[in-house]
Amino acid sequence: MPKKTPSADTPFILSALAPATLCRATIDAVASVDTTLLADAGRKIDNKTKPAGSLGRLETLAVQMCLVQNRLDPAIGQKNLFVFAGDHGVTAEGVSAFPSEVTVQMVLNFLAGGAAINVLCRHYGIDMKVVDMGVAGAFEDHPDLVKKKVAPGTENLARQVAMSADALKTALENGMAVFLEAHARKPIDIVGMGEMGIGNTTPATAIICALTGISPAEATGRGTGVDDDGLKRKTAVIEQALKLHCPDSKNGFEVLRTLGGFEIAGMAGAILAAASKQTAVVLDGVISTAAGLAAFVICPSIKGFLIAGHRSVEPAQKAALSFIGLEPVLDLQMRLGEGTGAVMAMDAVAAACKIMTQMASFEGAGVSTASGTATA
Amino acid sequence: MPKKTPSADTPFILSALAPATLCRATIDAVASVDTTLLADAGRKIDNKTKPAGSLGRLETLAVQMCLVQNRLDPAIGQKNLFVFAGDHGVTAEGVSAFPSEVTVQMVLNFLAGGAAINVLCRHYGIDMKVVDMGVAGAFEDHPDLVKKKVAPGTENLARQVAMSADALKTALENGMAVFLEAHARKPIDIVGMGEMGIGNTTPATAIICALTGISPAEATGRGTGVDDDGLKRKTAVIEQALKLHCPDSKNGFEVLRTLGGFEIAGMAGAILAAASKQTAVVLDGVISTAAGLAAFVICPSIKGFLIAGHRSVEPAQKAALSFIGLEPVLDLQMRLGEGTGAVMAMDAVAAACKIMTQMASFEGAGVSTASGTATA
Repeated sequence: MPKKTPSADTPFILSALAPATLCRATIDAVASVDTTLLADAGRKIDNKTKPAGSLGRLETLAVQMCLVQNRLDPAIGQKNLFVFAGDHGVTAEGVSAFPSEVTVQMVLNFLAGGAAINVLCRHYGIDMKVVDMGVAGAFEDHPDLVKKKVAPGTENLARQVAMSADALKTALENGMAVFLEAHARKPIDIVGMGEMGIGNTTPATAIICALTGISPAEATGRGTGVDDDGLKRKTAVIEQALKLHCPDSKNGFEVLRTLGGFEIAGMAGAILAAASKQTAVVLDGVISTAAGLAAFVICPSIKGFLIAGHRSVEPAQKAALSFIGLEPVLDLQMRLGEGTGAVMAMDAVAAACKIMTQMASFEGAGVSTASGTATA
Repeated sequence: MPKKTPSADTPFILSALAPATLCRATIDAVASVDTTLLADAGRKIDNKTKPAGSLGRLETLAVQMCLVQNRLDPAIGQKNLFVFAGDHGVTAEGVSAFPSEVTVQMVLNFLAGGAAINVLCRHYGIDMKVVDMGVAGAFEDHPDLVKKKVAPGTENLARQVAMSADALKTALENGMAVFLEAHARKPIDIVGMGEMGIGNTTPATAIICALTGISPAEATGRGTGVDDDGLKRKTAVIEQALKLHCPDSKNGFEVLRTLGGFEIAGMAGAILAAASKQTAVVLDGVISTAAGLAAFVICPSIKGFLIAGHRSVEPAQKAALSFIGLEPVLDLQMRLGEGTGAVMAMDAVAAACKIMTQMASFEGAGVSTASGTATA
């Protein structure tokens, strides 16, 4: 990881951003989901030919999608998944089971189509792009690669701030641009947040500790698989970083600036941009959930657009989801990241929309209800 | 429900069946999954470009499918879902929130394509057929209807045996034929078990109590949504039935004969037939799990072919899965039946097979492992 001169420690606050900047304009454009249709959506799903509530989570997803799209016949056509990639100076502390060159290698694996997320995106018919937000390596042009590099890796958050205020603004705006540019080319109905970055469970866990108040000892997990000593080291590094930076728990920007990373800030930007365009966003594991949490603290109005794709085995993710008030759709004991849990949930959301639009009603099908016959 | 003369109470034991019968021949043809490839399958999945175990349940499903298909490149092409339908004399006891004519109405809804299972089978590309095993009503011919009616509904299990030994043999063989005939036309790679039958959580729960020893008070749930009084009544009916029949907990046939129903026995037959053809079987909620449990008690060698699709909210299902030794793939708080949970899990199994066959290995992709670089 190339070491850069520590940046001046300038705090980042939204009101200091000029209104014309993409970052400020995007956040200002976010409006909460319109709940006008909530009762109608509930009645519509309850009148489908099934006992009320018997489709469980598919029903709550169907109703949420009515609000997200502000219509009673929600539909998902275009599905996108972005894998935001970045490197982390904190790998110098020995917090990962894998060497940091794996970030570059895995980006190449994504571009060659051989990673788990490639397989799953093909299976589910999801348009997948890899975003270089801050990988410590250069890539040739590729149709599936979006070049948005802020810098080749963050600083070591255990020793100094992960990035400058300027770099954070660039990372957020690059992430916003990733969504907005794709959305302008072909409107996106649902977007999943994936990531790759050796060492990134450390900043993600630190962010969640900073924003929710959970302790590093409770929050820290094994990531890609550190041993007991690695887990102790990682926990200590997160404690040290929080003590060093003491970021304001109400300021999502400051938490991102001090703890990183570029791919996490990029995802936060993309999430804010998706919400500004009334698009459902599916979070994945602990890293993308940390990005979702930061975006939520920056702009709580995004909440109705968020869907927690799956329960990660990382303990910090549970704290973050609970803070936002989200319940994960799936629990397949996964901990890979890349967006693998998100894309599986995205397909369940698509199925839920079809339940809302394609299922017959008791009246339409001439099926008796629990309390009497409803005939057409 | 038409009332028939109680049948003579003839016990049903496998060894009394002539070897030439479909029932006996199918059960005799079941062989446990071949575990020869277990170590190779484990090595193959561990060498994919991901931390070992990080795809959680997808990895265990991928390995299971290697054993089921006895190859390291498992694949799922043809996917079938059968909705076995039947009526239940026990509805006379007021055990369901819905009137029993809903079974006929829902079969018509399935044939019209308007039920939840239709929507989901279309979404997942699954070939769906409805099987009339014992509905109290007549249906015109339909390309999606398989006519295998044993009788128009079972007897009231709270008062007499649900069916005669002959009827059970017919139900099992009809269920076997459903699978075998479809498999002969187009080989099936994975089959899901769905069902419809107003009142059928009562026999399903009774079967699970009889075979696992769990008490009706612990096992009985609200089915399609009975109120507190209904739940008490249903629990009492199950207690009464078990006291009346005292079926041998080691004899799955006797449990099916005394407690019913035709769709449950049909599913048990289809499950045995699928296992006899080395085909993966995905169970759904409490009804199909009761059928799977009965089939397992009749022929424990089927176990390796069984996949529990989802966690139902019905408490008896947990007892049955735990008895067989299965963990459900999904938990979406569903309790509809029809096969809705099974089809969602079937798609996850298909994705798992692609993880096994399409993902790059560390060596192939030139990605460093946790312990060092593996290059091609």
